Amino acid sequence: MANIQEVAKKAGVSVATVSRVLNNNPSVTPKTRLKVENAIRDLDYEPSMLGRNLRNSESRLLLVLIPSISNPFYSDIINGIQNTAIANNYNILLCETNSSPERENIYFNMVKNKLADGVISMDPTVNMEKLTELAENHSIILCSEYEEGGSIPYVTINHELAAYHAVKHLIKLGNQKIALINSDEKFLYARQRRNGYERALKEFGLPLREEWIYHTHQLDFQDGVQAMRMLLRLDEKPTAVFAVSDTLAIGALKEINVCGLKAPDDIAVVGFDNISFSNMTNPTLTTIAQPMYKMGCTAANMLISIIRRNKVESMVLDHELIIRESTMG
Amino acid sequence: MANIQEVAKKAGVSVATVSRVLNNNPSVTPKTRLKVENAIRDLDYEPSMLGRNLRNSESRLLLVLIPSISNPFYSDIINGIQNTAIANNYNILLCETNSSPERENIYFNMVKNKLADGVISMDPTVNMEKLTELAENHSIILCSEYEEGGSIPYVTINHELAAYHAVKHLIKLGNQKIALINSDEKFLYARQRRNGYERALKEFGLPLREEWIYHTHQLDFQDGVQAMRMLLRLDEKPTAVFAVSDTLAIGALKEINVCGLKAPDDIAVVGFDNISFSNMTNPTLTTIAQPMYKMGCTAANMLISIIRRNKVESMVLDHELIIRESTMG
Repeated sequence: MANIQEVAKKAGVSVATVSRVLNNNPSVTPKTRLKVENAIRDLDYEPSMLGRNLRNSESRLLLVLIPSISNPFYSDIINGIQNTAIANNYNILLCETNSSPERENIYFNMVKNKLADGVISMDPTVNMEKLTELAENHSIILCSEYEEGGSIPYVTINHELAAYHAVKHLIKLGNQKIALINSDEKFLYARQRRNGYERALKEFGLPLREEWIYHTHQLDFQDGVQAMRMLLRLDEKPTAVFAVSDTLAIGALKEINVCGLKAPDDIAVVGFDNISFSNMTNPTLTTIAQPMYKMGCTAANMLISIIRRNKVESMVLDHELIIRESTMG
Repeated sequence: MANIQEVAKKAGVSVATVSRVLNNNPSVTPKTRLKVENAIRDLDYEPSMLGRNLRNSESRLLLVLIPSISNPFYSDIINGIQNTAIANNYNILLCETNSSPERENIYFNMVKNKLADGVISMDPTVNMEKLTELAENHSIILCSEYEEGGSIPYVTINHELAAYHAVKHLIKLGNQKIALINSDEKFLYARQRRNGYERALKEFGLPLREEWIYHTHQLDFQDGVQAMRMLLRLDEKPTAVFAVSDTLAIGALKEINVCGLKAPDDIAVVGFDNISFSNMTNPTLTTIAQPMYKMGCTAANMLISIIRRNKVESMVLDHELIIRESTMG
């Protein structure tokens, strides 16, 4: 393929003149413009966007960091981010970190090296110290995850209140022994949801037993299966379970069924996220719906505002309890 | 933030010299290098990767086109692509086309404009004519989807044979009335899977009835629900169903359950893809497993070979029938 030097040579003009034609600079005479355009056509020259972006130092790319694309929780958020980005003439770059600091570094370097204009991080395992440092000179938004008292703007829901609502729903149905399937409490959302769980139990004077709290390593279906297997082995079994993600809750439902038990008669289950599968299980899953699409749109709008040097305020969106068969058979 | 001109001025050297330092050109004397490095540090200058990439015209980015990230079928393929890319010092850019030609154009232009070094397309709705034109001057691989007799290298499975195996399994279990829930037959894989379905029926002398073939608009759970609802309304109901994706099959299982019927006793179901949720349904889903992770790795390796100007051969990988409760309760 031809380069700009060859185009200049063929047209009998300088490289600077070719560049002026490519940028529609009005100082070029029509005659010169025609010569350059003919040379571009004859040589099948494709100007590099990298070169053009270099001039205004914009990549028009936004990075979206997610821990794993296999969690369906992220798909609607990403749709919201993507639609908003495209409406503003940006494209998004989905970056699966797999919670690996090395991968994170690759993506952080892309921002430092101006290959991307900003970052939306949804990764709860992100190195917050490094991200905060990056945010001093670059545009960053946290989505769903955030740091208490941190300096990076975020959009999220009230995780503590949402968990409180989920557990209160189980209590109102008459459950007194309620287990929690939580993820690792190194994550803020996991600590907040546990707080909501504890607040509901305390408010109704119900027992809080450590053996009813199970921590999973990941958020895969199999982690939920494993968690429920352990809970069903206890001498004093819970009559209800609140799981902090639908994937865990669906695994729990599967194990209940494999053990010949029935939800909600033997054990009621509430999940969190309202992923599309949650309505396909048997029984269907009661869950907390986050406004995922809206959250994605909001995150993208906030990021674009920051890139344009506007101030943005962090936002807390509303959640909703979706009652289905796993608690109200 | 400082630019390269300011660095040159502060160091008392030309822009070309700063550029040579940034590129570790050995012609720079240690004394000059030190002056430039001090200026870079003092001014907190971050060299733009865009500028550096311009010189070797590599972006080290690979585009991956998928129709929708909400179909879990893609997650393991993407993991394979991503791991292979990163091992070869590439990053991937996930592009959700939502089957929109406008979005497709944005991504095609990114390749033309050298913002990406190559494309892996998994989008069955991709404009094959445009993609083939792009492939004349750019590196393109088709993954899972491909064009019969086309010029773009691909990695796939034998869709016709896989469908034949799925339907033969249902026949061997004694089913004589077998329905097909297919997607739109404008897609090659849909036509091939239908051929496999018909071949199995013919081989065993079973009736082929148009009313037992239902075409869905999308591959969402709800499309499977709707398809099964129509099949269960027929006067002569099928005793088994082969659905061309697990999402459709899971929707079908849901509808069977909602109607008070049981799989496989009343109606057996086979899906396609072996997504992780297919083992969480009640009953668990018999399905065709594609080697998704391996397919992703293969696609990435083929693309990187093409980028390096090596010749590659298209590949057809093996599939596997995974027998679970929805056919062998």
